[in-house]
Amino acid sequence: MSNPNTFNLIETCPDSKARAGELITPHGAVPTPVLLPVGSQGTVKTLTPEEVRNIGMRIILANAYHLYLRPGIPTIEQVGGLHKFMGWDGAILTDSGGYQIFSLARLRQVSDDGVVFRSHIDGSQHLITPELVIQFQESLGADIIMVLDECPAFDVGFKRVQEAVSRTHEWAERCQRTQRRDDQALYAIVQGGVFPELREQSARFLTSLGFVGYALGGLSIGEPKEVTLDITEKTAALLPEDKPRYLMGVGSPEDIVEGVARGIDMFDSALPTRIARNGALFTRLGRVNIQNAAYSQAEQPVDTGCNCYTCRAFSAAYLHHLFKCQEFLGYRLATIHNLTFMSNLMNKIRGAIMDGTFNSFKDNFLANYRPTNEETRLSQKQKWLKSRSRNQ
Amino acid sequence: MSNPNTFNLIETCPDSKARAGELITPHGAVPTPVLLPVGSQGTVKTLTPEEVRNIGMRIILANAYHLYLRPGIPTIEQVGGLHKFMGWDGAILTDSGGYQIFSLARLRQVSDDGVVFRSHIDGSQHLITPELVIQFQESLGADIIMVLDECPAFDVGFKRVQEAVSRTHEWAERCQRTQRRDDQALYAIVQGGVFPELREQSARFLTSLGFVGYALGGLSIGEPKEVTLDITEKTAALLPEDKPRYLMGVGSPEDIVEGVARGIDMFDSALPTRIARNGALFTRLGRVNIQNAAYSQAEQPVDTGCNCYTCRAFSAAYLHHLFKCQEFLGYRLATIHNLTFMSNLMNKIRGAIMDGTFNSFKDNFLANYRPTNEETRLSQKQKWLKSRSRNQ
Repeated sequence: MSNPNTFNLIETCPDSKARAGELITPHGAVPTPVLLPVGSQGTVKTLTPEEVRNIGMRIILANAYHLYLRPGIPTIEQVGGLHKFMGWDGAILTDSGGYQIFSLARLRQVSDDGVVFRSHIDGSQHLITPELVIQFQESLGADIIMVLDECPAFDVGFKRVQEAVSRTHEWAERCQRTQRRDDQALYAIVQGGVFPELREQSARFLTSLGFVGYALGGLSIGEPKEVTLDITEKTAALLPEDKPRYLMGVGSPEDIVEGVARGIDMFDSALPTRIARNGALFTRLGRVNIQNAAYSQAEQPVDTGCNCYTCRAFSAAYLHHLFKCQEFLGYRLATIHNLTFMSNLMNKIRGAIMDGTFNSFKDNFLANYRPTNEETRLSQKQKWLKSRSRNQ
Repeated sequence: MSNPNTFNLIETCPDSKARAGELITPHGAVPTPVLLPVGSQGTVKTLTPEEVRNIGMRIILANAYHLYLRPGIPTIEQVGGLHKFMGWDGAILTDSGGYQIFSLARLRQVSDDGVVFRSHIDGSQHLITPELVIQFQESLGADIIMVLDECPAFDVGFKRVQEAVSRTHEWAERCQRTQRRDDQALYAIVQGGVFPELREQSARFLTSLGFVGYALGGLSIGEPKEVTLDITEKTAALLPEDKPRYLMGVGSPEDIVEGVARGIDMFDSALPTRIARNGALFTRLGRVNIQNAAYSQAEQPVDTGCNCYTCRAFSAAYLHHLFKCQEFLGYRLATIHNLTFMSNLMNKIRGAIMDGTFNSFKDNFLANYRPTNEETRLSQKQKWLKSRSRNQ
């Protein structure tokens, strides 16, 4: 096979499902487990590509749906493809937009052929098919591309999810048949909602088609966290050992540690960058909010043990001040801190797997890290999902 | 005199009043003529101190009024002073806040003693006196500090301006008497509105008090551009040769070139950074707006001759896209471009003065550079002044 995209499984944890490996892409090697920072619109919000690289990121996620709507695929193609357009020479994964079309856009009609939807930006009407989604992603030129899937809400019934699974399977086959470029890795997306039997059906069918990687879609979209983890564990166990497994839309520190323990290699999430812009910063003890009055006169950095630019150069009092004044620089510095925290976390996770100490690392991390209260988390998520479909 | 702040006049243009020199400050030498980028709230909007330095800036302006209200002088003092607070090791000039109190805040009462005003942020009531303004600026620890002045609107009558001049003079004396630190340079501010006789009175009186530097205040606040230049020329001619002359609030490329020709050494303006965030970018032919459809597919940088990070790394199409999506990175990249343009312009101006070719440089620059239409400029300025007093 001439496809330059491969996955090397390097080490497996003796006490859990955790794996260390590396993705080989046309734009460099990416150690796994990895979190992809989200740059839906062709920019990891607030940062330059240089900063993203200096933080330690080797792969980012962009979104074919957003880029299709704005600036349009032909513009990016003309400028020389997505890497050149955004000035990023590391690896890129483009999401197909399936999730966005079903959550962000105003749907007009879903048929076996494809989806007719209205843009969340200007209301214009568009038809997307599995074939078009592959053509768009081939034009964008990401290293890893995704099939078009149907992603129903987390709280719909079995029958509705079953239909979505069937359609996702048909669309996956059509995507596979459409692919022309041999330098991009096409990943399938397992659906099936919260129903283990549908997840199994989906994992088995998609595996039989032979994709370069497998994603778990339709999770972390509002269902309780135990359900996310349970379905993740069961589904990951059904996927091929030698292929990367990608849990879409998951990205809190505690969820990543739990996901890795269940055999996941790749994660993406806007959470670290989005909450940074709200002043929420990761520390090894949990999230803190820099706008809290406790920081107003704090001479120390937010996290004294942190090696990021923000914590090396600025006091918590300064960051607090920037947020109180709604200064752009505050959003940048918080984003740098959170992505550095995540990059360091992924390095520690990988190091622990390589050393055979992942389980004790995990226990130790989770014992210290206070996750956001589950009720608060769900209500925040619902609020965000709503504001997102209105404003994004 | 033990004050480490000095001004060296190095070269004078044989054909105009233009001068090249350098300010020596406790935080390094600053070649003049110089434009101070504005960081009112302790941050040059969107940029890190590192970026400001890499652009070539050696001095910035911060504002005692803004910092007094937020985060408060004691906070900055506790963290180790303004340089440390904002992570900037170059020179800083703090404006006293006179202009802001008279334009931004809701005034309650002006007396010979001082000014009672309400905060533009939360309406809280404050008293500011010349003595307090010096104490605040000594706590902040800038290299150059400014007296408290009274700055009436540009369109008030002679008598009102005359009163403001008298009060400005008394306050200048009180500021001078209050100063305790001997490592900061205190500059006076010449007032007198659009009346040459009042400007002359003010220049002569303040000169007789012997300040380290002299600013021209109350200009570029809404009056026609010819008036600004005329008053600048007449006032500069009355100030001591061997002291720096600072034209406050002026910062468009064409105004700076004209100001230098009239003997000005220092300028400050939020214009280059403010218009950047609206998508207006300087080029040698004039301002362009990156949101213009003409840029939507442009593979070239905004300014092909520019050496800034933005123009080296990104196409105009990408910058256009970022602005259309209201992405933070767009505001950063535009700010970097505009400040680099200004830094390069100041270098060219200084080089031309040193070479004895300033006049031809000026003619050539102004022949190419299309300034914003005067009517548009005034109406934009009015609009900005209004939105500023509401929102800043």
